[in-house]
Amino acid sequence: MPLRDFPVKVWLNGQVLDGSAARIAPDDRGLLLGDGVFETLAVRDGVPLRVAAHLDRLTRSCEALDLPLPYSRTRLSEALAQVTLANRLEHGALRLTVTRGSAPRSLRPPAEQRPTVLISAAASAAGTPEPATAVIAQTVRRNEHSPLSRIKSLNYLDGVLAQIEAARRGADDALLLNTAGFVAEATMANVFVVLDQRVVTPRPEDGVLPGIMRAAVIDATGAEEAPISPSDLAAASEVFLSNVSGVVPIVRIDGEAVGDGRPGPVWRGLGGLILGRDRP
Amino acid sequence: MPLRDFPVKVWLNGQVLDGSAARIAPDDRGLLLGDGVFETLAVRDGVPLRVAAHLDRLTRSCEALDLPLPYSRTRLSEALAQVTLANRLEHGALRLTVTRGSAPRSLRPPAEQRPTVLISAAASAAGTPEPATAVIAQTVRRNEHSPLSRIKSLNYLDGVLAQIEAARRGADDALLLNTAGFVAEATMANVFVVLDQRVVTPRPEDGVLPGIMRAAVIDATGAEEAPISPSDLAAASEVFLSNVSGVVPIVRIDGEAVGDGRPGPVWRGLGGLILGRDRP
Repeated sequence: MPLRDFPVKVWLNGQVLDGSAARIAPDDRGLLLGDGVFETLAVRDGVPLRVAAHLDRLTRSCEALDLPLPYSRTRLSEALAQVTLANRLEHGALRLTVTRGSAPRSLRPPAEQRPTVLISAAASAAGTPEPATAVIAQTVRRNEHSPLSRIKSLNYLDGVLAQIEAARRGADDALLLNTAGFVAEATMANVFVVLDQRVVTPRPEDGVLPGIMRAAVIDATGAEEAPISPSDLAAASEVFLSNVSGVVPIVRIDGEAVGDGRPGPVWRGLGGLILGRDRP
Repeated sequence: MPLRDFPVKVWLNGQVLDGSAARIAPDDRGLLLGDGVFETLAVRDGVPLRVAAHLDRLTRSCEALDLPLPYSRTRLSEALAQVTLANRLEHGALRLTVTRGSAPRSLRPPAEQRPTVLISAAASAAGTPEPATAVIAQTVRRNEHSPLSRIKSLNYLDGVLAQIEAARRGADDALLLNTAGFVAEATMANVFVVLDQRVVTPRPEDGVLPGIMRAAVIDATGAEEAPISPSDLAAASEVFLSNVSGVVPIVRIDGEAVGDGRPGPVWRGLGGLILGRDRP
């Protein structure tokens, strides 16, 4: 689901601004050290979805980094609605980013933290996602031993490198293995596999960011959590990827067809979740 | 070696500006994804040191990320000198940061990349560094299997988390082990250990960023590269940390004295390198 360019208004530290007028300081620790976290929320029919679940996860991510959230949940919910409205965004995504803000040069966080909070918006085409292709990334692996593998931090270079590899190999996305050689996730989505009629998704301890849409798909399909090997991928009748934008069927991995090479019945049964909506 | 606050002028995409006037865009991939690399250079007597070696490493880091450097080495050398002069910086550090710049929302790099290049400055107190204390980080480990462990990228949260742990445990710095349990490096420095009169430093494949000062200390001491275990740390007569700012003796690890608890003869023999200067 590629997102189209969009002339955005952003919310930055309490103010709605034109993106072109919003200024991040050159000593922001988000920029210099990747010191921050984020959430991406789906917007459908002009409404940001699953706001409470996203703010729950944001709060947990901030706690993991000892990063104080300078706005209340109510204020952040209002801000998300403001950005949606200011951009007249009907269908797309919001991104809520929190960094540790400006500080004197040091790895250690300053005694007095002044976090940067930024909300931006991007429109996307509505409609059923196109079937996609993937490769198993050979250049990077996900470190399931790092506490960072379970929070949505700004340290996203593993995913960028895997996307560069996918582009080079002519695929739409890449699946990342963990250091033990099991499937962890795609570059920006969780992975589901249908094996002998069972729906399976990697366990959190396999290096998975616990996606909000992942929980919805587990609810809808009764998926079990279990390690998934590359040979399981080869044997699967269906593979699909979930994130807040929706659920995308993967029809080819490393050049080989998944199942019969077409989106399958479990994916089709997801109904509204395919489009990133609340209900199957 | 804490760095003092400094009212900086920065160099941003070809212009020298007051830091307060320099603007990073809210859609810069360095901010949103940690998609970029950097170098830190020592400035001594108003001169940036080891510029060629830093630009060599920056070039390699950019190549690893498929990130085109939009300025020549000559132009960047001039820019480093300009920032030093504009800040009347006698003793301190420059930081040269390159990000993939602004782009539409996607993990995949855009077809046409417009990198952001930023140089900032910070002054530090001259003089011999104080002996420091360290802990062995328990919260994070360095992933020696990741290609990112060998480039100086903006994904620095492991180091930030280790510094937070060090602060909580009352130490100045933290030593990071790799996933195999061997010493990799400190949060922003390479590690040297003196064991039975031999000077030893971890191998690159142990998850080490190959520091430019590390190479100078290896030259000066004849240090050998070998795996270092936590019990080697406990048995060492000296431990010291090197980065471009200098070489700091570690006199206490996890509350236990290193050797006799005072800086040792190998460290003292480093002479000018202790202060981040070129020659031992």
